[in-house]
Amino acid sequence: MDKREMSPVAGPISGLVAATFTPLTPQGDLNLALIGQYIDYLVEKQGVRTVFVNGTTGEGCSLNLEERKQVAEEWCRQGKGKLDQVIIHVGCLSLKDSQELARHAAVVGADAISLISPFFFKPTSAEALRVFLREVASTAPELPLYYYHIPTMTGVNLEAREVLEGIEKQVPSFKGLKFSGTDLMDLGQCVCYCRSRGWALMYGVDEQLLGAVSMGVTGAVGSTYNYLGSVANSMLGAFDSGNIALARTIQHKMQDVLAFAKSLGFGLAVNKQVMSEVSGLPMGPPRLPLLASPPVQARAIAQKLQQVLGE
Amino acid sequence: MDKREMSPVAGPISGLVAATFTPLTPQGDLNLALIGQYIDYLVEKQGVRTVFVNGTTGEGCSLNLEERKQVAEEWCRQGKGKLDQVIIHVGCLSLKDSQELARHAAVVGADAISLISPFFFKPTSAEALRVFLREVASTAPELPLYYYHIPTMTGVNLEAREVLEGIEKQVPSFKGLKFSGTDLMDLGQCVCYCRSRGWALMYGVDEQLLGAVSMGVTGAVGSTYNYLGSVANSMLGAFDSGNIALARTIQHKMQDVLAFAKSLGFGLAVNKQVMSEVSGLPMGPPRLPLLASPPVQARAIAQKLQQVLGE
Amino acid sequence: MDKREMSPVAGPISGLVAATFTPLTPQGDLNLALIGQYIDYLVEKQGVRTVFVNGTTGEGCSLNLEERKQVAEEWCRQGKGKLDQVIIHVGCLSLKDSQELARHAAVVGADAISLISPFFFKPTSAEALRVFLREVASTAPELPLYYYHIPTMTGVNLEAREVLEGIEKQVPSFKGLKFSGTDLMDLGQCVCYCRSRGWALMYGVDEQLLGAVSMGVTGAVGSTYNYLGSVANSMLGAFDSGNIALARTIQHKMQDVLAFAKSLGFGLAVNKQVMSEVSGLPMGPPRLPLLASPPVQARAIAQKLQQVLGE
Amino acid sequence: MDKREMSPVAGPISGLVAATFTPLTPQGDLNLALIGQYIDYLVEKQGVRTVFVNGTTGEGCSLNLEERKQVAEEWCRQGKGKLDQVIIHVGCLSLKDSQELARHAAVVGADAISLISPFFFKPTSAEALRVFLREVASTAPELPLYYYHIPTMTGVNLEAREVLEGIEKQVPSFKGLKFSGTDLMDLGQCVCYCRSRGWALMYGVDEQLLGAVSMGVTGAVGSTYNYLGSVANSMLGAFDSGNIALARTIQHKMQDVLAFAKSLGFGLAVNKQVMSEVSGLPMGPPRLPLLASPPVQARAIAQKLQQVLGE
Repeated sequence: MDKREMSPVAGPISGLVAATFTPLTPQGDLNLALIGQYIDYLVEKQGVRTVFVNGTTGEGCSLNLEERKQVAEEWCRQGKGKLDQVIIHVGCLSLKDSQELARHAAVVGADAISLISPFFFKPTSAEALRVFLREVASTAPELPLYYYHIPTMTGVNLEAREVLEGIEKQVPSFKGLKFSGTDLMDLGQCVCYCRSRGWALMYGVDEQLLGAVSMGVTGAVGSTYNYLGSVANSMLGAFDSGNIALARTIQHKMQDVLAFAKSLGFGLAVNKQVMSEVSGLPMGPPRLPLLASPPVQARAIAQKLQQVLGE
Repeated sequence: MDKREMSPVAGPISGLVAATFTPLTPQGDLNLALIGQYIDYLVEKQGVRTVFVNGTTGEGCSLNLEERKQVAEEWCRQGKGKLDQVIIHVGCLSLKDSQELARHAAVVGADAISLISPFFFKPTSAEALRVFLREVASTAPELPLYYYHIPTMTGVNLEAREVLEGIEKQVPSFKGLKFSGTDLMDLGQCVCYCRSRGWALMYGVDEQLLGAVSMGVTGAVGSTYNYLGSVANSMLGAFDSGNIALARTIQHKMQDVLAFAKSLGFGLAVNKQVMSEVSGLPMGPPRLPLLASPPVQARAIAQKLQQVLGE
Repeated sequence: MDKREMSPVAGPISGLVAATFTPLTPQGDLNLALIGQYIDYLVEKQGVRTVFVNGTTGEGCSLNLEERKQVAEEWCRQGKGKLDQVIIHVGCLSLKDSQELARHAAVVGADAISLISPFFFKPTSAEALRVFLREVASTAPELPLYYYHIPTMTGVNLEAREVLEGIEKQVPSFKGLKFSGTDLMDLGQCVCYCRSRGWALMYGVDEQLLGAVSMGVTGAVGSTYNYLGSVANSMLGAFDSGNIALARTIQHKMQDVLAFAKSLGFGLAVNKQVMSEVSGLPMGPPRLPLLASPPVQARAIAQKLQQVLGE
Repeated sequence: MDKREMSPVAGPISGLVAATFTPLTPQGDLNLALIGQYIDYLVEKQGVRTVFVNGTTGEGCSLNLEERKQVAEEWCRQGKGKLDQVIIHVGCLSLKDSQELARHAAVVGADAISLISPFFFKPTSAEALRVFLREVASTAPELPLYYYHIPTMTGVNLEAREVLEGIEKQVPSFKGLKFSGTDLMDLGQCVCYCRSRGWALMYGVDEQLLGAVSMGVTGAVGSTYNYLGSVANSMLGAFDSGNIALARTIQHKMQDVLAFAKSLGFGLAVNKQVMSEVSGLPMGPPRLPLLASPPVQARAIAQKLQQVLGE
């Protein structure tokens, strides 16, 4: 009997979480049929048992609501009994859309929801963002809610720690955050706030996870854990057992691969192809406004990965 | 018989265009019933006969698709016989959503569509953006399409002139752009490109319209023309008749008001209130993530406006 | 008898001002001997009779104090009887250095001084910047002082209009500013402030001068007026005589050339080479940290210039 | 006999380095007489035996060359027999100035020099920056040279790792870098490059030092080590002995203090006052363009520090 079936209310997320790609057909339509195999791959090959669906990596904002619902539902259905937790990203520019997705996530049995700040109009204060989160949470009050802090994508420069201030009063279902930024002072302040409340603090900049781990995060959510999950797990294991030198060596190797990828132009389009190359699962093209790249970059990155990490 | 009824295919937009606010009830629901009076106000009090609906000012991205459709439809219906043109902004993060809105705009009789670049994932080249525009245009090929360039909001830093390059081949319905930026070299280059093709080039930074007019734009789209339309019209009239000194004086007065507004914190929330104050039409609160401000700022701005411009 | 000899105290600058390059030998030492011919070229070929020395274009910050003094002195000496005004840029990171240069400018007979904001530590308020300007001005109180506003280079984002507030009380020798920014609302506000005090307002973004002229600037300071001075003069003449269409055509042509230059990488290193190509005067290489480019870009730009503008 | 006297050629710097403030009299002149006591304070109270002089904290760019020389000389003279190493920052906008300071540093017996990238004109490639560093190093070839990477201050966005590429061939005296940035992937890549060459890698963002330590830096240079040196030393000691939990607790406490300071406006002006408050040594006011703050903020920060850290 797996952990998920045992606990009707899941505990805070921890460990590694894959921010899943959304599999598309070559024509750009949803390829829901692949999700079952995708789950098996994550669990069996990468040792990753929690997923973050429809987020940045999943091109959630490039799908329409109906598609986001279908993808969410399929991950929940296929993940049953196999995954620990399925977290659905419900961030949208429109509050009503986020509410609709939050309600739907509850219906299809998601374990938690998460959302970025709206970012066309940006909240001009932490309070405005908390009110937005509150209005989403109130439509799915039984689901743990995680704020997803990613200032480089949203341009919302509120410090995460500021957003947390008193949020438990406004959002009773608040259970922590995904922090995708490089300001480790803000992160450290969030660690203290979250720890005393039993909340999760997941880091989201894969290429410098070790720094965040030293600051005290409880886990990580990222795109590269789709194909570097087992490597990252070994890094976390080394750190936990006090072998910092080994953890560092592994992190440096991951950086080697990612710096190489970056030098070739490592946006989501290429990242998705790398997943296809490494896993053998056809993730398909990205959605517009991203254009598919020729496969040569992804192949070079997959080779580098094999060479440096033996994966 | 008005100009619009005479021409089944509208010519390129020119002159002043109001980027309309979306009237909401105090509870935050659509207040469609106000749109009729709103149109009368624009036409009769401001001398503005073309509108840009569901754009930045209209909080298009904060509405859901159903609401955007209702708003679009109401403007088209109520504007018939009163307005020259109704342009519907159909920009979304998801291509499918933009396509759905474009199709709908055609059905309800809009005169044109316009869209910003998607901006969560940003197009990494002008070509990627042109392909996105093409895919939207192809669902409403009979409607003129205007690209809406607004880098400070989207963070998409492609030069507008670059986006124009060869676009007529990919987007046969392309008819020009709304340029909301301060790079007047890029603007000047667009003027040349558009003029030789008979396209419109509308400027979108109200507080420095005169600079753009001197560069050769054909008109302007902005939020302040909702309540400063007649003032702006008199500025344009002065310029057209060769009275630069008068045009400049009027622009400086508008800047006086807008600089004062800015010093009080002049985001959309306050701007919408200013419209309510000046027009007497209750525009209602903004949508989250914007919070309503106390009315004191809007009142002070309306007073300043009255004092400086006698409006 | 020229204008300069007639008026012991020069009036505010107006018209076109060349931001001069600093001629260097192929080895990178000062080539002061060239300055006499340079002046003749500006006056005779470009119709430019005022210069702005040791500024951005002059690589003032890349010279040491002794070199800056030598360059300043030579322009003053050679310009006597030929130039209307010689303005010396004395901006430095260190107040003491700026003061030393200001005193020296007075000694060698400069007509005015100008300075950018210090920009390693940035003034955190307009008041801090005014105090800095005051401390420089007090060492050369007889020389008109112009503030040089160039936020893209300095990263100092104080609005120029804010800096002007009450500055006449702190800096009695204040006589206006050089505005090198694209925020034409800020510019317009400065126009009003300066005009009522009889101050100069010179625009510094050459590629969009016409927009600034329409806002009411009194002149322009720029690098391209070294070789496009006569073209820019004809644009200003057209504008002054009410022929906006001609002024616009000329501005568009200048933009054509400059956009082409930009597409080739138009930093100061190339700009300096373009001046050598067009004028036939050997300006020499740039100073580190700029590296000399191969001459191919500069030649292509000079050709484009010849082709578009017939210069 | 101390380490410094034993080794005529100092090894790479490691451990904690104080980026020293420059003591000024209340009138703003150099207060060289304080430097002796300052050194005693660092060594005896903070356990810090290496200093970084005339850098950001030392307001090097706000001093003129003569002042920078006097300060450098005094630190070298007074530090003899007391300090392990005295590193002189010689970064200037003008290469000639940096060369003059480098030569002077060698004459007065500095142990090493360091410099930021010039940042008015910014190097447009890593190669341009390496050439600049080479030209400085060649005037003091016997002194180890450290590159000082601080993109938030300089706006120079070249990755540090890129700057390192092949630099040993161009700058034989190159011995490592001070990395003041938050991109820990770039940092990790630098760690690998430096380690294999026996170079130093000192971290410069005090509030997140622990993250950098986990990545493998060899030490840290910062302003807060002037008064938090003993605290930071205990953090490093805990980390080295494998007690990550303790190291983290100490870092979090430091963050608590610094976040509080930041909330009050923690620029250099206040930081310098905090040093005066905590050490009892009168550091004096900052130099323009910074203005002295009223002492209330610095006192509140010093109290917070006492309360949280018992220092």
